[in-house]
Amino acid sequence: MKLHILGCYSATPRALTNPTSQVLEIRNHLFLIDCGEGTQVQLRKNKIKFSRIEHIFISHLHGDHFFGLPGLISTFKLLGREKDLHIYGPEGIQQAITLLLKLGNSWTNYKLVFHELTSKKSEIIFENTKLRVKTIPLDHRIYTNGFLFSELPGERKLNVLATAKYKIDKAYYQSIKQGKDIKMDDGSVMANSELSLDPPKTKQYAYCSDTAFNMELAPLLKGVDLLYHEATFLETEVHLAKKTKHSTARQAATVAKEAKVNRLILGHFSTRYKSIVPFREEAIEVFKNVELADDGKSFEI
Amino acid sequence: MKLHILGCYSATPRALTNPTSQVLEIRNHLFLIDCGEGTQVQLRKNKIKFSRIEHIFISHLHGDHFFGLPGLISTFKLLGREKDLHIYGPEGIQQAITLLLKLGNSWTNYKLVFHELTSKKSEIIFENTKLRVKTIPLDHRIYTNGFLFSELPGERKLNVLATAKYKIDKAYYQSIKQGKDIKMDDGSVMANSELSLDPPKTKQYAYCSDTAFNMELAPLLKGVDLLYHEATFLETEVHLAKKTKHSTARQAATVAKEAKVNRLILGHFSTRYKSIVPFREEAIEVFKNVELADDGKSFEI
Repeated sequence: MKLHILGCYSATPRALTNPTSQVLEIRNHLFLIDCGEGTQVQLRKNKIKFSRIEHIFISHLHGDHFFGLPGLISTFKLLGREKDLHIYGPEGIQQAITLLLKLGNSWTNYKLVFHELTSKKSEIIFENTKLRVKTIPLDHRIYTNGFLFSELPGERKLNVLATAKYKIDKAYYQSIKQGKDIKMDDGSVMANSELSLDPPKTKQYAYCSDTAFNMELAPLLKGVDLLYHEATFLETEVHLAKKTKHSTARQAATVAKEAKVNRLILGHFSTRYKSIVPFREEAIEVFKNVELADDGKSFEI
Repeated sequence: MKLHILGCYSATPRALTNPTSQVLEIRNHLFLIDCGEGTQVQLRKNKIKFSRIEHIFISHLHGDHFFGLPGLISTFKLLGREKDLHIYGPEGIQQAITLLLKLGNSWTNYKLVFHELTSKKSEIIFENTKLRVKTIPLDHRIYTNGFLFSELPGERKLNVLATAKYKIDKAYYQSIKQGKDIKMDDGSVMANSELSLDPPKTKQYAYCSDTAFNMELAPLLKGVDLLYHEATFLETEVHLAKKTKHSTARQAATVAKEAKVNRLILGHFSTRYKSIVPFREEAIEVFKNVELADDGKSFEI
């Protein structure tokens, strides 16, 4: 799993700072998460192949998370896209995109599949045999979801030393990978644990932007490998965080600690701050394993 | 009059090329013309003061001329704007902007004044004592207007040598500037032409993007000081120009020649071309005074 930060600053795009967007590489998928203005240029700069994006998750309909989407959809068309594009986002997103395409008489040649979200409870919005995406209801000025990306346990691994030792016929391999015990020629039963190894450990990534400080998030984020939590402000501006329903670096760290996550990445920094270094300094007092997002930075999970 | 090119490439924004947007400095106004994605970043890079923009002219509702507008409107709000913002553009522009603001619950604190255009004939859409803006109906895939910006003749200039010589009382100065003859103390009449000089020559700038080759434009563009005409393609792709209702460099030059304009600037280049130099080479065979637009370039008019 790998996370590419395309933009991690709040509000207005500037020459050197981009509004929110990121790409999660997970089990051969490229998931685009939020799409502020300029995201398509950031995709190019970060050499991410447009055609590999099939699912876009939009947390909420504030411009700095969403105004890059109409242009990206148009560019997909210009690039000759044929594959369906799935868009997950708040109710109204379909109406907005449809109106813009209609006004420009610029209907896409490929299919747009909208998955509009309205639930205030966490729900599964994507699932296949390898991974699952759930919403994380956030507390912001408008209806907002974070997203929890979870790898699902794959098949067990064949213990090739053991299968050779016991001369297991290849015909049984699939059953062994599926965790089944094997009946031997002499009538005895060989336990699956003798013939297979645990599958690779699954990983989880949680994306939480934008949100007020909310300890109720912790159970949903329990033990995730990586948490991206917004930290628009420092504690010196905690009153602004409260007023605008954003979080401070310390608050993000407090949630990370309570949820016992492995690593915390801070982002969605207000451009009022000349340096983002103090965000880490503030958070690390509460939670040790904290890093700062930055446009163009990647994180292995 | 000064023209700042913020973006002059067609279709998709890229790392080094921006979709269409320009700023015209005219009689103390800053008029924004078209607003592709990333325009607000280009405004910053070109050090153009956001607060001085009070009028935005949108030629048509294709994304590469329009998708930067919602973000710019939001940024104006974040910057604490209080002044009205006038937006001139095709019918539907108000519905689109209003829907996006509504979905984000991000109503502006300042007043948005929409001037929706529907006429297929040239019409005056802005006028004060100093300048006038008229539409230039263009032939594109959707309803599209170019814009003709004309300075209006100002007051005549006082001939200070003459007023001193004839000992004209200051009380008459305003009348002289307005072109009136003056009755002297001895009862004789002094012709205005003796006491005043012609006002500075007025200038005109015409913006034509996007449009199919259309010689009917020439009368509307007659003798303008500067014409920006789109040249999406070279003649080698004239079939694409015809199909997509765009122009070639030669076609743009042909219109410029017929209209006897002073200078021609080409823009809206397709990003399929590795160099824009051939656009000038092609156009100059037809019309001599031709220059190439480029992002970040300015032209004195």
